[in-house]
Amino acid sequence: MDFIGANILSVSQFERGDIDRIFTVADTMVPYARREKVTRVLEGAILGNMFLEPSTRTRVSFGCAFNLLGGTVRETVGVSASAMAKGESLYDTARVLSGYSDVICMRHPQAGSVAEFAAASRVPVVNGGDGANEHPTQALLDLYTIRKELEGKGGSLDNFRIAMIGDLKYGRTVHSLCKLLCLFKNVQLVFVSPEELAMPPVVIEKLREAGHQVTVSDQLEQSIKAVDIVYSTRIQEERFESQEEADRYRGRFRLNRDIFTRHAEPNTVIMHPLPRDSRAEANELDPDLNEHPSLAIFRQTDNGLLVRMALFAMLLGVEDKVDQYARPITWQTRRNQI
Amino acid sequence: MDFIGANILSVSQFERGDIDRIFTVADTMVPYARREKVTRVLEGAILGNMFLEPSTRTRVSFGCAFNLLGGTVRETVGVSASAMAKGESLYDTARVLSGYSDVICMRHPQAGSVAEFAAASRVPVVNGGDGANEHPTQALLDLYTIRKELEGKGGSLDNFRIAMIGDLKYGRTVHSLCKLLCLFKNVQLVFVSPEELAMPPVVIEKLREAGHQVTVSDQLEQSIKAVDIVYSTRIQEERFESQEEADRYRGRFRLNRDIFTRHAEPNTVIMHPLPRDSRAEANELDPDLNEHPSLAIFRQTDNGLLVRMALFAMLLGVEDKVDQYARPITWQTRRNQI
Amino acid sequence: MDFIGANILSVSQFERGDIDRIFTVADTMVPYARREKVTRVLEGAILGNMFLEPSTRTRVSFGCAFNLLGGTVRETVGVSASAMAKGESLYDTARVLSGYSDVICMRHPQAGSVAEFAAASRVPVVNGGDGANEHPTQALLDLYTIRKELEGKGGSLDNFRIAMIGDLKYGRTVHSLCKLLCLFKNVQLVFVSPEELAMPPVVIEKLREAGHQVTVSDQLEQSIKAVDIVYSTRIQEERFESQEEADRYRGRFRLNRDIFTRHAEPNTVIMHPLPRDSRAEANELDPDLNEHPSLAIFRQTDNGLLVRMALFAMLLGVEDKVDQYARPITWQTRRNQI
Repeated sequence: MDFIGANILSVSQFERGDIDRIFTVADTMVPYARREKVTRVLEGAILGNMFLEPSTRTRVSFGCAFNLLGGTVRETVGVSASAMAKGESLYDTARVLSGYSDVICMRHPQAGSVAEFAAASRVPVVNGGDGANEHPTQALLDLYTIRKELEGKGGSLDNFRIAMIGDLKYGRTVHSLCKLLCLFKNVQLVFVSPEELAMPPVVIEKLREAGHQVTVSDQLEQSIKAVDIVYSTRIQEERFESQEEADRYRGRFRLNRDIFTRHAEPNTVIMHPLPRDSRAEANELDPDLNEHPSLAIFRQTDNGLLVRMALFAMLLGVEDKVDQYARPITWQTRRNQI
Repeated sequence: MDFIGANILSVSQFERGDIDRIFTVADTMVPYARREKVTRVLEGAILGNMFLEPSTRTRVSFGCAFNLLGGTVRETVGVSASAMAKGESLYDTARVLSGYSDVICMRHPQAGSVAEFAAASRVPVVNGGDGANEHPTQALLDLYTIRKELEGKGGSLDNFRIAMIGDLKYGRTVHSLCKLLCLFKNVQLVFVSPEELAMPPVVIEKLREAGHQVTVSDQLEQSIKAVDIVYSTRIQEERFESQEEADRYRGRFRLNRDIFTRHAEPNTVIMHPLPRDSRAEANELDPDLNEHPSLAIFRQTDNGLLVRMALFAMLLGVEDKVDQYARPITWQTRRNQI
Repeated sequence: MDFIGANILSVSQFERGDIDRIFTVADTMVPYARREKVTRVLEGAILGNMFLEPSTRTRVSFGCAFNLLGGTVRETVGVSASAMAKGESLYDTARVLSGYSDVICMRHPQAGSVAEFAAASRVPVVNGGDGANEHPTQALLDLYTIRKELEGKGGSLDNFRIAMIGDLKYGRTVHSLCKLLCLFKNVQLVFVSPEELAMPPVVIEKLREAGHQVTVSDQLEQSIKAVDIVYSTRIQEERFESQEEADRYRGRFRLNRDIFTRHAEPNTVIMHPLPRDSRAEANELDPDLNEHPSLAIFRQTDNGLLVRMALFAMLLGVEDKVDQYARPITWQTRRNQI
């Protein structure tokens, strides 16, 4: 696809070559994200960061990504803060706000709203999550993380094994990730969930059509035995029909250091889209894994910055100029790289 | 008036020469708003953007206008987020916050509050709307738009015809616009509204004193027959005494493509202060006009950026230096100019 | 202490030499805060300004301090806007967000939370107030103001007299200030409060151990007779057991121009941590003192900017480079210095 001026609305819009290009550009962003140098390449450009639904992580990540390229951010948070509450259409909001900025990132609680907004916008729009529908930059950062972790041990996206655990029925991130995986070859997937929260058959079909091998299980320990990646997700208790049902499953899909050490291969990588629920009654990913080198969940969010920087640079056509506008940093930093 | 260090609180403070100067400066801002180049003229300056009442459009427009001049914005949204909720006076808030920034834009729900704030502020204050009272930059951008649209067809502010439609009794924008029109010559005005929402006699008197010709009507179709500008505004149903009353008027002041095509001269311009209510039961300006070249409502908001940039530049005395600090833009943009 | 990369969590972490260094750096920030010049020393650096509890003054002060050094600010306001509401731990939030920014300022409603956050953060954290616990930059700006005001009349922090008035039991600011005063010599303190709101004995003990002279009183007029500084604080009526109790004290600790003129020495300085309650039934510091030259409350907030700029510069190791990246300002300003 032609990235300049494009909207990023869904993972379905990418071909394999597009993914490769995004990841190649993301790699070049590392020195900036690590503050080894700074760039002014987007100085003067404005990101309209519109989060009509609460989000700290994603909102700040988009904003910082734009800032790290030298751009400026104007932010809108919460739908009540908006004229839309008075009956203004998405069309009007898009026409107006796109006259103010160079690119817009939008999160909206309703599926399809970001695409509707983008259709009326005069500048590129990046979907920051539209309800149960899509959150394409999350899927991209997940895939980018998998690639990086695999490459770290000589592997690649064309031949690896992954277990996805938790709520696979409603989990937006696992569905998008599976769509992207269809662009690659020879992936072995194990889906581990309570029966009520199983991966939808249509997703499994697509994966099989792509030549991947899919197994379904409700046994955590067995499933993590021979995989490269464990991708854990949150189970919301309200998904179950009764408290008894929830109690029955409680804990069966929780990963902790003991289970991981006893069952997984030592260099298996643990991922999670975050937020994880750290309350004792919920924690799908135990805090006793926090300092474990296999835990890649904060490498994921760090990678999110790289992927978003890459997208912004590509949408505005500056990916080849970032270094040209670079300068050494002036301050000292004791940033602890994870 | 002397703009450097001045407050912008009311349209009443302007003489005709002031308006001309603002518009002349606004014209010079076009290449920056269109991203043909960027400027650093206000690099290091801080705008305190204080919106103690919700607003997306106006807040973002002020913020972007300052950013486009190279300045930085610190924002406060919502009164609960403020110490004022604990009984702090506007005086104290103004003394403190004006020590942090170089210029302040304030929206406040109470009439007169922005002037009270400005009296205590140590830096210039721009009124971003104080309740039912004033919203001077909206009036300026409306007038600037009228001028630009008229000039496009060889006309000028000293000789034109305008119909104002909708809630003319409570509409803050039409009152301010009428005040400004008193500075010009030979304007023919038609006020179209339900009787309960008629333009206040005092406004009509002032216009006649200025030598303008005023007609009052409650017939939309007749009134738009021979005008250069149709300025539509929103009618809030709760203004009517009963539902029957509201139903009686429902639709009588709605402009759509059919009515416009059948009754108005072809190059009549349609304006609206926004937001317009796009819900079917309300829409005073039908979405079927969205792509009509006469619809100037998004040119209005684009012009708002220019007018606000001009004011900031003049209050800080840099209107002649903007180009001196200009540079070519580094990114590619596929911005669709309206 | 070594400031580079350090957290600023409590006034207890400072030795006298640290205070001296901070104040020396703060002095060098004056020309930037007064807009006599601007600096780009932190261009490219990002402050994560996280206010999980409402605050305008402190939030904007931190943000502007960072901007005045040339840095960029990404802001989060309100806990509901955060994943923490969904059960995310402070550990996770800190790991993630510290991957985005170069330094974080956090206000949190719960005592100890900022320290917990800082322990997991990968970048320096400044405590912007954690419930009833600490607000170290407020104590620093108070002390810096006292020093500056005393020096203005030939005095110093090692030999002065101060009356603290109001709620001395729950007042976070007076406790922190007293801790800092223990680092200096020969301070005479008078604590003036209703009995129920007296200064805790442990604070008084510490002051006496440091060699200071402490007097306790419930008579405002007597207590301000022979002091250099009057530090007034707010009394919240809900602290009293009954309305009668509150009524009995109502007004006994209010300072106004008449009382001040009749009882205090002419060059006594009046301070207050703000916000002060300006409602008639509460005003501990009467508005009739607003234009009095002794009133230093807005010099305090101006000084807050200097102290915060100093801390940011020191945490990032650029305090010696600020001037190297300086430039003359481009705009005209009619800022009225207080």
